[in-house]
Amino acid sequence: MRARFLETAADEIVALGDALIQTAHRETGLPVARLEGERGRTTGQLRLFAAVVREGSWVDARIDPALPDRKPLPRPDVRRMLRPIGPVAVFGASNFPLAFSVAGGDTASALAAGNPVVVKAHPAHPGTSDLVASALRSAVQKAGLPVGVFVMVHGASPEVSLALVRHEAIQAVGFTGSIRAGRALWDAAAARPRPIPVFAEMGSINPLIVLPGALRERRDAIAEGLVGSCTLGVGQFCTKPGLVLGLSSPEWDAFARSVADRARAITPGVMLHAGIQASFDRAVRELQGVAWLTDTGARVARVSAADFARQPHLAHEIFGPYTLLVTASSRGELLQLLGALDGQLTATLHGTADELAAAQDLVDVLGRVAGRLVFNGYPTGVEVSHAMHHGGPYPASSDARFTSVGSAAIFRFARPVCYQSCPPALLPPELRDENPLGISRLVDGRATRDPIPPRA
Amino acid sequence: MRARFLETAADEIVALGDALIQTAHRETGLPVARLEGERGRTTGQLRLFAAVVREGSWVDARIDPALPDRKPLPRPDVRRMLRPIGPVAVFGASNFPLAFSVAGGDTASALAAGNPVVVKAHPAHPGTSDLVASALRSAVQKAGLPVGVFVMVHGASPEVSLALVRHEAIQAVGFTGSIRAGRALWDAAAARPRPIPVFAEMGSINPLIVLPGALRERRDAIAEGLVGSCTLGVGQFCTKPGLVLGLSSPEWDAFARSVADRARAITPGVMLHAGIQASFDRAVRELQGVAWLTDTGARVARVSAADFARQPHLAHEIFGPYTLLVTASSRGELLQLLGALDGQLTATLHGTADELAAAQDLVDVLGRVAGRLVFNGYPTGVEVSHAMHHGGPYPASSDARFTSVGSAAIFRFARPVCYQSCPPALLPPELRDENPLGISRLVDGRATRDPIPPRA
Repeated sequence: MRARFLETAADEIVALGDALIQTAHRETGLPVARLEGERGRTTGQLRLFAAVVREGSWVDARIDPALPDRKPLPRPDVRRMLRPIGPVAVFGASNFPLAFSVAGGDTASALAAGNPVVVKAHPAHPGTSDLVASALRSAVQKAGLPVGVFVMVHGASPEVSLALVRHEAIQAVGFTGSIRAGRALWDAAAARPRPIPVFAEMGSINPLIVLPGALRERRDAIAEGLVGSCTLGVGQFCTKPGLVLGLSSPEWDAFARSVADRARAITPGVMLHAGIQASFDRAVRELQGVAWLTDTGARVARVSAADFARQPHLAHEIFGPYTLLVTASSRGELLQLLGALDGQLTATLHGTADELAAAQDLVDVLGRVAGRLVFNGYPTGVEVSHAMHHGGPYPASSDARFTSVGSAAIFRFARPVCYQSCPPALLPPELRDENPLGISRLVDGRATRDPIPPRA
Repeated sequence: MRARFLETAADEIVALGDALIQTAHRETGLPVARLEGERGRTTGQLRLFAAVVREGSWVDARIDPALPDRKPLPRPDVRRMLRPIGPVAVFGASNFPLAFSVAGGDTASALAAGNPVVVKAHPAHPGTSDLVASALRSAVQKAGLPVGVFVMVHGASPEVSLALVRHEAIQAVGFTGSIRAGRALWDAAAARPRPIPVFAEMGSINPLIVLPGALRERRDAIAEGLVGSCTLGVGQFCTKPGLVLGLSSPEWDAFARSVADRARAITPGVMLHAGIQASFDRAVRELQGVAWLTDTGARVARVSAADFARQPHLAHEIFGPYTLLVTASSRGELLQLLGALDGQLTATLHGTADELAAAQDLVDVLGRVAGRLVFNGYPTGVEVSHAMHHGGPYPASSDARFTSVGSAAIFRFARPVCYQSCPPALLPPELRDENPLGISRLVDGRATRDPIPPRA
């Protein structure tokens, strides 16, 4: 039934039709084609979670059958599975008015786990939020669920957000946005009489390393791909590569020129709202200690690794069409710089087949710094799938152990409940001997879909 | 190799021989037989985690193979698995000088996940801690691991503990102890520039409900089991049933007399240290608003549900041989009282087969309050297995989503790393097409041990 509810929610969003797209376009300035794609991503996420819930194995059912003859003491029958954590507060993000907003990944995964959701709409797209909320309310009604399963509140003041996080009924928080706002929610949740988990996906500059052989093989193609990734969505993606690193060489200089030429030719689109545009303009205007390679179009700057290391502000995220090229004098210096970075959502490595085969040192350091490693590609365009991990060490996210994209996002909003010596009739179906749902379970530590054999 | 290391650690603890048991006996006052049992539990935990690591599926490997022909965009190859979170700080508990201390469940699970561990020894058993630490260091050496893989520090001052939690190299914390100490560590970790997760297993009064039919069927047997559970380890278990609830009736009064008679006949053992004994004596002496049923032996008091609800201090844990009987006037009052409880590690329900079959209301409310539900048994004696969950809503533990006992405890100390379009040779074995380790993996969302078919 929960699966059907999620699918109905997707249907209801589709049924909003062009009014949704036009409203979102008006409120965010994002192009219609991008919004149509994002709507597909949003409904796709709801359907993915419906499939996960219907398949059922996500509850991580574990069964250790009784061992009545064990010495010195018999072992009792012990079974556990994941249950809903309780009401979840979700904060809509400005940069994805559909996919990371009212019915976005946080809401979909929290509902899929069986929790009620209270959404705080992002003030940058209130009309879009109202439309999507009406679709969700309609799905709640059609599913015959209590109206409290989905509630949305508006409010531009931080006090509204903090009051929501502090409310004793709220048991977990999902958030995508700035480090400052995410940290404020984290601090409020941690200071509660009963602290709750906050899953805040915050800042990242997403280092991208280009090795020398890759430059020789396909310098301009990488420059083209990089500029495309940096300016996608007007640079307003949390996975935008904001830091590009290479080794000092004539090829690297030529790559920098190629990037700058392409960036200069870009006509930046309209940003999400006036505040973001003003922040971007100010950040670029006030940035010290770099050499600018472009003064129009997308903004590209350059600095040496030594100067980068001396100026911690250069490692701060600048949301918008900007990236910083960093020239390292040696692989050792490159490794040292990467190892000193704050936590990142992604790290990307471009190299020839031979270079990658010899890049275990880089893979090791990047694996400690980032949540997702991309090879010969670009970090923007986060696949919504089972194996995706969208998260990373702080401040990329507030808890590196959880993803906010993909089906594993459901694990943020569930907790185990264990049943010891429970009469079969009281067990949830997921834990019954006969495995009526046919899910994959861990029986005595081994994954299987087999039923538990009848007790002797 | 990690599995072999954990097994060697178990062997080295066994090799300490009677010196370990005698030292622990001298320092804690716990009986030799109990300590021998606890040593078996400790080495059993290490061997369980060795088996989990050797089997290998715990890394939750997920593979979404590339879909080069997908429209509108090809899907890249995406794979993820759990990797070590980083150095873990573990705080030894006073009440299990072996199984929840230097080489206890926190240390075993953190090492099993691949992390270095820094143990802060509990000041109540420094000699025991030194012996176990020497065994672990010996295992580190025999495994050829860096000496930093296991380090132990002493220190009775809270400043030592806080300095450890605040150290920027520490990435997670395991703790078992009081709410006050656990909350102090939580607050320190949450206030770090880069916050880290704290897994603190803290206080619980473990409600135990006896339904009327069960009283008629086996009143004295339940009284016997309850008093045994309350006085096991001199009542110094975090799962001690400190709250016993029933419905007002002559049978309930007879049960109370039966419990009191048995409790009075107990000769309490020596407590872990003078501080715990003094705290217990003071807590019992100063407890207001209850009627005492015993004034010697194990301490049993009684109160009405209405009076219990009016006096929040009665819901605080009293560590030691004490329990409180609460008489409810109706099932509604019972349900209301249970629903208002703080988070609990366990909740126990005694009933006849018919009573349990009709107890869905109780199971629902207990499942929201507690991490483990026990039927017709006792909560002490926590099985170390795959399906065990030892944790619960705050303050039972600081994060209800994780267990500190059983093989699932390993998930506290690992985080996913995702590889997108990674050359096969750079992939960890767990994620390679051919599945060389034969582990269970989620391929396109479906659990399987099959290899990935060769790409066309």
